[in-house]
Formats: sequence, C-alpha cells, structure tokens
Amino acid sequence: MSEKASVVIDLKFEPEDVARALAGSFEGRKVLLASDKSADLSGARYAFLWKPDLDLFERAPNLEVLFSGGAGVDAILAVPGLPDLPIVRFVDESLTTRMSEWVVLQCLSHLRQAPAYMRQQASRTWRELSQPEAKELTVGVMGLGILGQDAVRKLKVMGFDVIGWSRTAKTIDGIETFDAAGLDDFLGRTDILVGLLPLTDDTRGIFDASLFSRLRQGGALGRPIFINAGRGGSQVEADIVAALDKGVLGGASLDVFEVEPLAATSPLWGMDNVILTAHAAAASDIRSLFANAEKQIERWEQGEPLQHLVDKVRGY
Amino acid sequence: MSEKASVVIDLKFEPEDVARALAGSFEGRKVLLASDKSADLSGARYAFLWKPDLDLFERAPNLEVLFSGGAGVDAILAVPGLPDLPIVRFVDESLTTRMSEWVVLQCLSHLRQAPAYMRQQASRTWRELSQPEAKELTVGVMGLGILGQDAVRKLKVMGFDVIGWSRTAKTIDGIETFDAAGLDDFLGRTDILVGLLPLTDDTRGIFDASLFSRLRQGGALGRPIFINAGRGGSQVEADIVAALDKGVLGGASLDVFEVEPLAATSPLWGMDNVILTAHAAAASDIRSLFANAEKQIERWEQGEPLQHLVDKVRGY
Repeated sequence: MSEKASVVIDLKFEPEDVARALAGSFEGRKVLLASDKSADLSGARYAFLWKPDLDLFERAPNLEVLFSGGAGVDAILAVPGLPDLPIVRFVDESLTTRMSEWVVLQCLSHLRQAPAYMRQQASRTWRELSQPEAKELTVGVMGLGILGQDAVRKLKVMGFDVIGWSRTAKTIDGIETFDAAGLDDFLGRTDILVGLLPLTDDTRGIFDASLFSRLRQGGALGRPIFINAGRGGSQVEADIVAALDKGVLGGASLDVFEVEPLAATSPLWGMDNVILTAHAAAASDIRSLFANAEKQIERWEQGEPLQHLVDKVRGY
Repeated sequence: MSEKASVVIDLKFEPEDVARALAGSFEGRKVLLASDKSADLSGARYAFLWKPDLDLFERAPNLEVLFSGGAGVDAILAVPGLPDLPIVRFVDESLTTRMSEWVVLQCLSHLRQAPAYMRQQASRTWRELSQPEAKELTVGVMGLGILGQDAVRKLKVMGFDVIGWSRTAKTIDGIETFDAAGLDDFLGRTDILVGLLPLTDDTRGIFDASLFSRLRQGGALGRPIFINAGRGGSQVEADIVAALDKGVLGGASLDVFEVEPLAATSPLWGMDNVILTAHAAAASDIRSLFANAEKQIERWEQGEPLQHLVDKVRGY
C-alpha cells in the first residue's frame, strides 16, 4: 500500500493538546507541523487551520481541502491569502453539547440568582432570595444553527419558555421563531437574550444600546439579561457596560469579547451580576476535529462530496 | 348554599406571601389564621401546617385533614401532639421543576468550574480552565421519588451519565438503578453525588465520612462532588468539612444544613468549590399548595380518597 497523502497542522492551540490528539490519528499518513520551520510542506494536501502562519499557503501550495479548527468560520475567512479551496467547518457533537452546557448553566445562574448567592456566601449571609421559576421567563435565542437548536431544546426541557430568531426564517418543533423582519417583536418578548450568532457583516456590533433598549423590561426578573457565546465582534462592550449601569440590562454572561484576552482594565470584570469566562464555552475537542476530518478525507479520496462545507458567500 | 367548612392556616412563611396566595383561594370558605390568637378555630376542618404553634391542635380540635406546607414530611411528623389524621404531602409540579433547576445548576456549576471562574474574575484573570464534558461524569442520584426522577431525566438530557439509588429497587427507563444492597457499587461509580433523600431513621447522618470515602476517586473531575438538596439531617457537616480539607471531596453544593440558618461560624461558608444557598432549592409555591388542597378538599367532601397521602410508617 502506497503512503497516503500528508496533512499539515497549523493550529495555535496548546501544543501538548495537539500532540495528544494526534497520537492515534491519521494512520498511514505523514503529519507535518507548520511550527517546524524546516519541514517541507509541499506534499501536504490537507491543512488544519486556527490562526495560521502568514506564509503557510506559500509553503504548502498543493493543498486540496482546509479544515477549520474553530466553530466560527469568520476567523478562517479573514486569513490573508486564503486559497479558494473547500473549507470543512468544525462540527462535532461534543462542541454542541459543551456549548449547551454553558448556555443552560448561564440561564439557570441568572434565574436562580447565583451571583447574588455568591455575594451572600462571601459575607456569610443566610437569606432566601425571591425567584421566579423557569417557565415565567422567556429565553430568546439569536442564531438557530446546530448550536442554537440544541440549546433551544435543552432550555425547553429545563422549563424555560423559549423563542428563537434567525436572519432567515427557521421552523423548529414547538418553538416560536422570528426572522429579520420580526426582530423587534422577538426582542420585546425576551427576558434572557442568548447570542449564538456567527460573525458576518450583518451581525458585527448587532448587540448594541439600541438592541438592548428593545428587550422586555419588567419581566419576572425585573430587567433583561444578555448572554453571548457566539462571537465577541457581535457585541459593543461599551454599550453593555452602559446598559448595565443604567439598568437597561440586569445582568450578563459573556464568554466572548471584542478583543481577547479581555483587558484587565475592562469594567466588566467587576460588575454585579456579570459572569465572565475565557472563551471557554465550547472548547474545541481536537480529537473530534481529527476524527471528523479522517471521515471527510476518506470521502474526498473516494470522490464523494465533502460534508459540513462553509458557504463562503453567506460567510458561515 | 350553606357556607363551606373552614380552614386554618399555620404556615410560618412570610405573612405577605401567604396573604397574596390566599387572595382568590378557598372561595366560599372561611379562612382562619392561627397567628390571630383571638380567633375561634373550633370550626376548622382543614389545617395547613409548617412549623405550627404548639397549641394549634388544642385550639382546633375538629380537624379532619392536615396539609403539609413543605416537601419533606419529617418536620410535620415530628410536631408534638400531632393528631392521627390523614396528612396530604406537598406535591406540585412547580416544586419539582424548581428542585431540578437547582440540581442541574449545581451539577453544571461543578462540571464547568463556575467557582474557579468566579475567583479568576475577581482577580481579573483570563485563563481557560480544562474541563471534561458532561458525558465523562457519572452523576449518582440518591432518592428516586418524584423529585429524584425528574432530576435524573433532566441531567440525562444535559449529557451526564446518570445512575440512581433508592432503598428499595426502582426501575427507571434508560437509567441503571441500585438498591440498599448495591450502595457500595453505586458510590464507587459516582463522580457527583446528589442527595434528594427524605429524612428518616435510615437516612439520618447517611452522608458521612464513611460514605464519602466510598465515592469514586480519579474520575474526570479528579475528586468527587457532594450535592445535597434533600434534608440537612441526612448530612454530617463536620465530615463534609473534613472530606473537603483532606481532598476526599473536591467540592460541594449545599442547600440544607443540620441547623438552619447555618451558623456564621461554619467553615463551609469560606471553602473553595463550596456553593451554599439558603434552603431555597425548591421554595414552596404557596399558590400551588392551596390549589392542590382545594382539589383534595373537594375529593374529601365528596367521599373520594385523598391523593398524595403521607405514609406515616415509612415516614415519607
């Protein structure tokens, strides 16, 4: 059996994590690391990319398929000199369930006043806080792709009233959905807004003062909550801070930021009812990335169509 | 139409909450408050009890049915001078879903290292923490009544591996269950232990050093987590503190305590990875209590059997 075509890895993750996932992957195939500056990449036909080197495509001119190392594809589409090749997105069940873990955790944390209980605990205060139950709150999920649909289903099981929004209308069993024209109606019904949008020209800065002001006031939590695990570029952080200060928002959970890591000077770190995580809502499981890629490479080499391709025109 | 038999209320909840729930309840029936010391309670046939006055049964000697104001019935069974009358437990859907909200919130908080992220946030530290996903952890639920079964189902939807334990064997679709004889096997498989047990002679102090030492060590979170939303009398708090200190436990979430309110001197308040709430996991919705009671009183007055009766021999 002749050796199979080689792959090149340019994933700016923790090198040990990548090495661990590579052990046992791509059997019979040469694996090249772009970080090895002396490596000859000219034989590589498949590339795994997350924040790739600027000279990668020069060093590897014979690539046939690109694999995105992140769930969002805005980063890879913005890579300078990106060749016009099919791009396979990173879809795996693990990534979806992890995102839903985080989204449900954040919705429940605000429902059950977890930040307030933590403050009480720090001052050794015993006080039962009043709280609505899940069904009294409407969670509005913006972005109804694979991640959004899984989150919607699980939020509903937990008892929340759930509605959904996407640019183009989507039908989801048992969920009322809205499209671009219905944005104001959607926002006016929403007590907890969950952002799971890709970053495109349409969504850049969409979570701003104007949008926050259209969320429902006076719902069961008093004031609306903003939760974002999509892309930092979709939010205007200065507007989030102002909305929290003015009481237009009652709280927030953010996993993504305009600039990451979030600057230590950001006022968000110290605000009440704000929960921050370090772009960790749905950490990519590299083993899942490689496992799906092996399946796709098999299809490609047998002349079958690739799955989970990025639509470069729509940008996601 | 003659006036219906009267009810007496002796619920040591917030008086305004009780008054709000009473508005619109028990139409055509006289409602007496035990807190009104001059009230003549001799005509009352139905009583609502939560930490009742010691003289209540003297003042109201003609009661026919007692309604428990709390989910657990140990408190009402321990009331001095309790007459031998049917006791209707407090079962309502709202209480069940609220308990599951809290249980799922706590399991996700430990899975996703919420306390560690809170500490990082306080010091404005951006660091992605490694974390297993839900399916890598086994949640063992002790107590498979209405609350336990609902929690099991929702934890499973969130992706956790879930097993269950009850004194006598229970069959739950898709869940491996254990009974009294299988306790060691159950504990040896459990990464996150969730206590939803009633307080009986069998369960008093069951969560002690010996039990903690039999939980699985070296699971995906490293060390096991103890979560209790059942009854404080089931746990030995000194043993919880010692197990956390020694690393036999890696964390805990407690909503119930041996003595409530928890003393400000308890070391639990200040321990890492310990989350405390003020017996608020499943606050009784008084409106639901009254709504179910109206249904039961209707049945009683028409000679139909009461539902949700306490079994005084088993103690729950």
